[in-house]
Amino acid sequence: MSRLWNPSVRALQPYTPGEQPKLTNLTKLNTNESPYGPSPKAIEAIKDAASDTLRLYPDPTSQGLRQAIAECYDVGVENIFPGNGSDEVLAHVFRALFHPDEPVLFSDVTYGFYPIYCQMFDLPYRMIPLREDFSIHQEDYTGPCGGIILANPNANTGMLLPVEDIEALVKRHPDRTVVVDEAYVEFGGQSAIPLIKRYDNLLIVRTFSKSSGLAGLRVGYAIGSEELIDGLTRVKDSFNSYPLSRPAQAGAEASIRDTAWLEDTTRKIIKTRDALIADLRQRGLTVLPSYANFILAHHPQHDAGKLAQALRDQAIIVRYQGSSPRIKDWLRITIGTDHDSKRLLEALDLIEKNTRR
Amino acid sequence: MSRLWNPSVRALQPYTPGEQPKLTNLTKLNTNESPYGPSPKAIEAIKDAASDTLRLYPDPTSQGLRQAIAECYDVGVENIFPGNGSDEVLAHVFRALFHPDEPVLFSDVTYGFYPIYCQMFDLPYRMIPLREDFSIHQEDYTGPCGGIILANPNANTGMLLPVEDIEALVKRHPDRTVVVDEAYVEFGGQSAIPLIKRYDNLLIVRTFSKSSGLAGLRVGYAIGSEELIDGLTRVKDSFNSYPLSRPAQAGAEASIRDTAWLEDTTRKIIKTRDALIADLRQRGLTVLPSYANFILAHHPQHDAGKLAQALRDQAIIVRYQGSSPRIKDWLRITIGTDHDSKRLLEALDLIEKNTRR
Repeated sequence: MSRLWNPSVRALQPYTPGEQPKLTNLTKLNTNESPYGPSPKAIEAIKDAASDTLRLYPDPTSQGLRQAIAECYDVGVENIFPGNGSDEVLAHVFRALFHPDEPVLFSDVTYGFYPIYCQMFDLPYRMIPLREDFSIHQEDYTGPCGGIILANPNANTGMLLPVEDIEALVKRHPDRTVVVDEAYVEFGGQSAIPLIKRYDNLLIVRTFSKSSGLAGLRVGYAIGSEELIDGLTRVKDSFNSYPLSRPAQAGAEASIRDTAWLEDTTRKIIKTRDALIADLRQRGLTVLPSYANFILAHHPQHDAGKLAQALRDQAIIVRYQGSSPRIKDWLRITIGTDHDSKRLLEALDLIEKNTRR
Repeated sequence: MSRLWNPSVRALQPYTPGEQPKLTNLTKLNTNESPYGPSPKAIEAIKDAASDTLRLYPDPTSQGLRQAIAECYDVGVENIFPGNGSDEVLAHVFRALFHPDEPVLFSDVTYGFYPIYCQMFDLPYRMIPLREDFSIHQEDYTGPCGGIILANPNANTGMLLPVEDIEALVKRHPDRTVVVDEAYVEFGGQSAIPLIKRYDNLLIVRTFSKSSGLAGLRVGYAIGSEELIDGLTRVKDSFNSYPLSRPAQAGAEASIRDTAWLEDTTRKIIKTRDALIADLRQRGLTVLPSYANFILAHHPQHDAGKLAQALRDQAIIVRYQGSSPRIKDWLRITIGTDHDSKRLLEALDLIEKNTRR
């Protein structure tokens, strides 16, 4: 703690993102990136944006990108709020749309950034435990609250909540913002976006980092009523007028317009995922049902931390979260290519063989 | 005001950036962009970053870029904090490094975002009036405060404070962070960066948007003691782990390494500026001494707002800030190329001619 800091900074416990190793010969299955990379059209658009026009500020309203997103989901431009990754969008959401007098509600196993945003913006919160089988029950989210945020599919588990349950929540809390973080929804989930036309208190958050293969470009967005978007815009314009660079706007716009690429790559990832789940279960591992581009797996014999290390020794990185009590015996494994799955299974078989010896 | 917003959002009065018109045939002298664009090496680096590697998250610590900045200024990597434009850096500075119990001090004519950050982060502030001639006197910044921020050269005036005055301020307030926003320092000012080795409470903020011709890429940074940088990093990691995209890190790194390009283009801009000041003064305008890539000019006959409109009618945009009492009779004009100056002078002469008729 420095005498020079705002005293509130001492209390912050910053988020630790998954490791981004410099080594390139690793099978990197720890931060849920797409193995297929972005649409070639997105790459082309970014190259085109790398020109003398970079001397000019970008459009502070990201009009072209918002138009493309609006067309994609059949909503209005005024329903779209883009930001520098869905993390920045979420930060503005916590600042702008949650009431500070009552606790924000989210589940105890979910995206680890939620409690950190609450600290950052001085919001009380209450974590609602997942049920024993890691499922979310919307009827657990009752009582006065400052707002609700759910990741759907849920982060770390990959499990899905039906849209009907989202609607029940939104109806139960008409004067509070209900946020659905759909970072992983393209991998087999059903989006709640159509509901925004009927409920002004529902906000959907999306990212280009997962299914669109653009984690390195940093673009995310929210979709909701004009009222919610206006609140976010007020906060954004009190923070950074131009959060999205010219290359980011151009690349994300080209990406979302290339629906064929998105459909093709997500279909491949879903196929690889379902095959990997079957193969792991065949080897005796417990794997939660997943609607995301990752799975949560438990090995009956091995300590999860040691297993993660043993995989790393074979140049495979997965995510082990030993500090989270409820998932400390589980590994979160990103779905890569079929070849990545093969490498993972071979590595597990080798560990098994060495253990039996 | 929506029932769904955090009530504090109602009080925010967001910043309004200068217009970014869609038209391309305008002489755009309103937001202090470089007429020369970025270093060709920066463009090349951004094109190279537009590849399949975009599927991976960027380095959350921007190590390569920080290394390049550190080498450029002969400081340590641990002294560098990069962000998504200097606006984001400044936002984190206000959140992390200013004390909320006493007023933050800044001048009454300066970058318009400073009071907005104070609102955003609930910091009291006191604006110290510039002297009659628009000069800043460091001895006016006395008494208990939560921190001090000065733009040097000052925003909107272009006037410069000697580094000795910065040092006096830093010495007078040893337990508060003194921030010098050097967005425009490359255009003839003297940087206070060397002082950071002697004073742990001095922070310098820089941007790639002005002299480096990369406004469209959104990169800025702070330089200061490890203690100050640590405070900023805690806040950043509680907000957005990956604020800088891969193209942004690559482009900014290549840009700062190309010192020859920077020297060449800033020299040209300084030359154009000094010629334009002389030409305007010859026509009877009052022009403040400028160490920036813009000038603040007052026309003895014309209302500033009407003059700005008359210039716009001739496809030239300058910045008119009618809502700022002390500079409502002045126009802020970005320095472009010699050709831009010629166009501006011809337009002024035409307005003069039409007025006399």
